[in-house]
Amino acid sequence: MALKGSCIVAQSGGPTAVINASACGVVQECMKHPHIEGIYGAVNGVLGILNEEIFDFRDESPSDIEGLKYTPAAALGSCRYKLKSIEESKEDYARIMEVFKAHNIRYFFYIGGNDSMDTADKIGFLAKQMGYDMRVMGIPKTVDNDLAFTDHCPGYGSVAKFNAAAVMEAGRDTDAIYTSDTCTIIEAMGRNAGWIAAATALARREEADAPHLIYMPETVFSREHFVEDCKEVLSRYGRIFIVAAEGLKDKDGNYITAAAGEFAKDSFGHVQLGGIADILREIVENEVKVKARYNKLGTCQREAMHFASKTDRDEAYLCGRMAVVHAVEEDLTGKMISLVRESDEPYRCTTGLVNLAEVANAEKPLPREWINERGNFLTEKFIRYAAPLIQGEVEVPIENGLPKYIRLNRKAIPKKCPPR
Amino acid sequence: MALKGSCIVAQSGGPTAVINASACGVVQECMKHPHIEGIYGAVNGVLGILNEEIFDFRDESPSDIEGLKYTPAAALGSCRYKLKSIEESKEDYARIMEVFKAHNIRYFFYIGGNDSMDTADKIGFLAKQMGYDMRVMGIPKTVDNDLAFTDHCPGYGSVAKFNAAAVMEAGRDTDAIYTSDTCTIIEAMGRNAGWIAAATALARREEADAPHLIYMPETVFSREHFVEDCKEVLSRYGRIFIVAAEGLKDKDGNYITAAAGEFAKDSFGHVQLGGIADILREIVENEVKVKARYNKLGTCQREAMHFASKTDRDEAYLCGRMAVVHAVEEDLTGKMISLVRESDEPYRCTTGLVNLAEVANAEKPLPREWINERGNFLTEKFIRYAAPLIQGEVEVPIENGLPKYIRLNRKAIPKKCPPR
Repeated sequence: MALKGSCIVAQSGGPTAVINASACGVVQECMKHPHIEGIYGAVNGVLGILNEEIFDFRDESPSDIEGLKYTPAAALGSCRYKLKSIEESKEDYARIMEVFKAHNIRYFFYIGGNDSMDTADKIGFLAKQMGYDMRVMGIPKTVDNDLAFTDHCPGYGSVAKFNAAAVMEAGRDTDAIYTSDTCTIIEAMGRNAGWIAAATALARREEADAPHLIYMPETVFSREHFVEDCKEVLSRYGRIFIVAAEGLKDKDGNYITAAAGEFAKDSFGHVQLGGIADILREIVENEVKVKARYNKLGTCQREAMHFASKTDRDEAYLCGRMAVVHAVEEDLTGKMISLVRESDEPYRCTTGLVNLAEVANAEKPLPREWINERGNFLTEKFIRYAAPLIQGEVEVPIENGLPKYIRLNRKAIPKKCPPR
Repeated sequence: MALKGSCIVAQSGGPTAVINASACGVVQECMKHPHIEGIYGAVNGVLGILNEEIFDFRDESPSDIEGLKYTPAAALGSCRYKLKSIEESKEDYARIMEVFKAHNIRYFFYIGGNDSMDTADKIGFLAKQMGYDMRVMGIPKTVDNDLAFTDHCPGYGSVAKFNAAAVMEAGRDTDAIYTSDTCTIIEAMGRNAGWIAAATALARREEADAPHLIYMPETVFSREHFVEDCKEVLSRYGRIFIVAAEGLKDKDGNYITAAAGEFAKDSFGHVQLGGIADILREIVENEVKVKARYNKLGTCQREAMHFASKTDRDEAYLCGRMAVVHAVEEDLTGKMISLVRESDEPYRCTTGLVNLAEVANAEKPLPREWINERGNFLTEKFIRYAAPLIQGEVEVPIENGLPKYIRLNRKAIPKKCPPR
């Protein structure tokens, strides 16, 4: 006998192209279950719960809900508000339970990365301790692809696809104008893991194609090796195309961008405060003696729904849907939906389940053996892993030459608790 | 009686998404005229002529030639080699004529910006002076859209479309996560004209949509006004989305990025060497007191064929084709093809002709009345101008989830001149 009551879905952390597809999966699946009353959304993630800023998806139009499948970024709103241990964030947890009880929320679907899985786990624990019957399910989301116990994360395939296309195109630019603009550097997201930078390897179909060099946080970044690599590539192709993850680290494990040691000052003695791409640009210009420029796609890379992976989007939707199925039909709680790869060729992937607590405390860097020995490119193993994730394109409606994304109304439901 | 002989086409300056479409137009039109013998391409622009690095499009496959219509960047190769006055660059001009004569080149089609139109003009002048019968035609190309005597330039519609989409998407990111990442800045290309930055206004369909503020080189950039603008937007929407052209200038006409005066040092007293976006980021963080980040799409923006304007591409092709038609069928020389807008709604555009010398010596900034009085956004006049240019999408073949662009073989034809 399934638990009767309302559900709430919240989005957390950095948005992605497909995080709304997961929300859509949750909502559309919930609609099938008559014993789920309110299908609530929290405005701006856990902040919406704390502030009791809640709306009901039953007040949204079905076409807007369907539109979540092709609308990037967090349509519910997101935040970076971090809950700590139950002891340290006691009041926040109490407030969450207060709001849940007031609205008879019996299902909590949290779409996010490992911090969010940690929060979800603690909420589940508290509910149990208080004897409040509820189901808590996590839905993975991160462009960084660094969640453990899942083959990959929804959001990654799309950021991978767009970055690879952007590198392919900027690569053509360098091929065309290398006689004056000889080196191009692309800064890819990734403070702790190199998955996004790595994905641009998919753009290199022939040896001379961009990118020629890819640097990731999983290996030590050496200025000396870097300069050698650049000179070697330059002598071979007459041009250099580099992709660097934001979070490159030196041999002592310090971020290069932290501006300590050999990277601290530029050739004029000025302290460097810029991103990794600008630091590498300066090294190339000073030591390889060719003109270098850099592109930093920033938040554009994680929202590029106009060229997103259909595989990724469909899996994001499936993860949302399956969280509801497991919670409602099987009474499961305290789990995150994982993606389980069954085969590479043909690519087949289903969902699995993993304990929230396990995901919360683990990270998944790129396996060292997927990076070449020199630490400047990927091996065939990585390509086999990543290639299926970027297949297919999400169809986006176009209006006047630009995507027509939806906006939810997010009409507030009446508050039932005293202000926080 | 049309002039018999070979033709050569060359691409110049920064590549664009559609510069190859213009080359395709030239080549496919030339193929229709039996008295045109070799249909040559110069490798890397005028450098290919100087170095006699030339290939024949008759050796390329028709499907690769057709593929130029959807392949970004300069497939023939480009360069930034600048020819000066006939007196100053005497040897270069003599060399060009030597190579032209050796290969019986009677038609020169030069795809580029105003520097290239200047070079083409001088070549035409010299040929006439030497009694060498030839036709010289210019084909406009620049993402900067700053050529005079043409309604707009091939390349602009596509960079406009992609930047608008990227701003729309990054705007959704800011909408979602503004509670922590409150301000986003996008750096758009444009050292002297604000056309590209301006185009992102097309992304703003509702008042709260990104971008909220757009700064262009056509108006004076004041730090004080900028901070006021940011505070006003912040109080209204709770977030700030800014687009800035690279070449913002202060009241004395100096580039902000030139690091003089009030922008020379950051709050720590360090000299600023970064781009405009990083400078604005720092101002926002220090004076508006919210977290700011920036995206710099760099060369990715001008090559984004995966989301390029079909209108732009078709016009680029037409310009190439019409250059041949006028030269071959009407014996015209010394002209650039221009785009002539006949109406906004429905949008209709044909080609016209303008003297190379006129284009060479003029620039076209954004009209002041298309920018609002405050200098921080565009008026309806600009929207009416720009909207038609981004309509339609270029269809790109996809292979394994990524665009499948062509590469020309560029098989060298035998040299006939002594080395330079």
